[in-house]
Amino acid sequence: MGKNAIVGQSGGPTSVINASLAGVYESCKNRGAGIVYGMCNGVAGLLKKEVVDLSTLLSDDLEIELLKRTPSSFLGSCRYKLPDWQADEATYEKLFDILKELDIGWFFYIGGNDSMDTIGKLADYGAHVGSDIRFMGVPKTIDNDLMITDHTPGYGSAAKYIGVVMKEIIRDATVYGTKYVTVVEIMGRNAGWLTAAAALAKGPDSEGVDMICLPEVPFNVDRFVEKVRVMQETKASIVIAVSEGVKLEDGRYVCELADDVHAVDAFGHKSLTGTARFLANTVARKLDTKTRCIELSTLQRCAGHLTSRTDITEAYQVGGAAAKAAFEGHTGEMVALKRISNNPYQCTTELHPISEVANLEKKVPLSWMNENHTQMTQEFLDYARPLIQAELTPIYIAGLPHHIYMKR
Amino acid sequence: MGKNAIVGQSGGPTSVINASLAGVYESCKNRGAGIVYGMCNGVAGLLKKEVVDLSTLLSDDLEIELLKRTPSSFLGSCRYKLPDWQADEATYEKLFDILKELDIGWFFYIGGNDSMDTIGKLADYGAHVGSDIRFMGVPKTIDNDLMITDHTPGYGSAAKYIGVVMKEIIRDATVYGTKYVTVVEIMGRNAGWLTAAAALAKGPDSEGVDMICLPEVPFNVDRFVEKVRVMQETKASIVIAVSEGVKLEDGRYVCELADDVHAVDAFGHKSLTGTARFLANTVARKLDTKTRCIELSTLQRCAGHLTSRTDITEAYQVGGAAAKAAFEGHTGEMVALKRISNNPYQCTTELHPISEVANLEKKVPLSWMNENHTQMTQEFLDYARPLIQAELTPIYIAGLPHHIYMKR
Repeated sequence: MGKNAIVGQSGGPTSVINASLAGVYESCKNRGAGIVYGMCNGVAGLLKKEVVDLSTLLSDDLEIELLKRTPSSFLGSCRYKLPDWQADEATYEKLFDILKELDIGWFFYIGGNDSMDTIGKLADYGAHVGSDIRFMGVPKTIDNDLMITDHTPGYGSAAKYIGVVMKEIIRDATVYGTKYVTVVEIMGRNAGWLTAAAALAKGPDSEGVDMICLPEVPFNVDRFVEKVRVMQETKASIVIAVSEGVKLEDGRYVCELADDVHAVDAFGHKSLTGTARFLANTVARKLDTKTRCIELSTLQRCAGHLTSRTDITEAYQVGGAAAKAAFEGHTGEMVALKRISNNPYQCTTELHPISEVANLEKKVPLSWMNENHTQMTQEFLDYARPLIQAELTPIYIAGLPHHIYMKR
Repeated sequence: MGKNAIVGQSGGPTSVINASLAGVYESCKNRGAGIVYGMCNGVAGLLKKEVVDLSTLLSDDLEIELLKRTPSSFLGSCRYKLPDWQADEATYEKLFDILKELDIGWFFYIGGNDSMDTIGKLADYGAHVGSDIRFMGVPKTIDNDLMITDHTPGYGSAAKYIGVVMKEIIRDATVYGTKYVTVVEIMGRNAGWLTAAAALAKGPDSEGVDMICLPEVPFNVDRFVEKVRVMQETKASIVIAVSEGVKLEDGRYVCELADDVHAVDAFGHKSLTGTARFLANTVARKLDTKTRCIELSTLQRCAGHLTSRTDITEAYQVGGAAAKAAFEGHTGEMVALKRISNNPYQCTTELHPISEVANLEKKVPLSWMNENHTQMTQEFLDYARPLIQAELTPIYIAGLPHHIYMKR
């Protein structure tokens, strides 16, 4: 029996992050790992030695299949920020003691920028103390804001969800034929990839959204209201997709103009909410028109009932590719997706040093928007469309998708 | 060629109201109607003679199949309240002149309580002036608050949507393992049928929601906060389903405690929104805990990507049954669904005078809740479960459900 492996999930959940977990698990098993441990609640749980032998939870193929189709993070997650080892070596000593006790040879962390920061720090410290544990990052984030990788697993399904529900919201918002402005708030703190996905709604069977507001473009409330007023002159129902993270020219978030409380998390991120509500209220007041705000909220990241099969397949693949690389001796790297061609869509994986990824953010290029910065161009659609292709139907039992979860 | 038929859609859209339209259309055509007209935006549009020959829009079987799977109201809708004819006979004279001009023999209106009020008034006036036009009501509402009928087409799909997304929200809300209260706001002004459907989320693979708050039960904010506090002692993630229409003992809506503007529509209904936000903010402040509010908003009524096949089938059937009844000479009646048995689920249609339905509301019986009025009983689950069974997959083209819509 070889050494053991350990895998954790970190950051915000997605509807396909468990497919990556399944990929890591099966690939480690097939490559001769002993026990494959799961960290409960990521590194935060590992520090408390909260781990589980995954084979006790995933005992047959049906359970692994259910895992692939269950949204959110099966192992639980955390937003724990690892200190620099030079500042707090004790934490690292504790972690490496636990890893030694568990006889770990391979360590996998599935997450976004912050999680790659964790992998980078652990690999650095491992090199410093001469550890032979291999540390590999597995990309995951609905935000699609990781550098290097063509796109991130999780984005395709969230983009598909957004495209689908925008079509449905557009249909719904036109029924009365009266003037009506709908502002839909979509996740994305600094990068507008998710909001841009609203552009997918347009087609021969849908008018599409009337305006897209990305955080990459400085926001001006008066200009926004004026654009709505002009659009209303020729179209009764106006549907707008706006990022939760749109900011004024002075750097303040638009949602800060409302009077809600804004909490801050361990990474110093402000809790953003209320952008659509503020804009809908402002438009209603200034243009004397009926408005509605819709926050897609957590539904956009956990809609396991509406995933992209392409995305689920790639999420599984990056998990397996990470295991392969770690078993081949790689460490301190992340698996990235590399697009080979668009038509037909072909994609493979490659490895990159964590330093090229951690703590960096990939923004939407403004050249993928029209001149007014209100719509996405064909270039963006060519990029995004392959990622939402095909469906993976949940396993429905008595009318509801069946999940698997860890009872604790 | 026989006389012509006309059909309209009214009130809030659902994801299956177009299946009823397809049922009326096909059944009228099969029974020898001449032209089948669609009213654009219901009676309000009819008064402006905004009608369309449906055969020009639904020219083949594929278009009818797409219609069945397209959410929202294909013909557009209205919230127009017909005056009493004794008070304003001119409106009725105008309407009947238009119907005469169009050579209408059969008139169908698909909608909820308010729409049945319209059918009742038209049938009464028709009898008064000796018209031979047959007026039939076709039930539709996600709210499930119509009397007489066992349930309403539209409810099953909305209930399924709510059950599915509550399961997904529950999975999402547990990931950090930290104290977290999620308040989900669900539609339903006075009847809690939709909010009750959150109970469907519970099963061997889901903890289910922790509390359900229906508008049928007087709401007390302090007692609510205290219940949350007690639940938090034994469970980190608390998920609560609350109706937008919950009211205090003094009759005020809970959302009126927040400081938003509340508009009023033509039927005198207040626009309810902000209930979950108010409660989440209150809990956060009083219990010093992290909270999130989620409004299911229009997504719960227009999620054509997640319908109940049982519901779509029944929606189509009631449309056909209404045409059959009208052609057999019935008028001033509504088609109702009558449940024959639960196990196996069997359901048929019957006819009832509009007076038994119009302007009445069917509430959730409190005997279907537990003693504390915080959860639904098995009796409710036995009632609701058959209605969410089986799926009708949208016709996906390039990753998105294909719709049909009327370009105007």
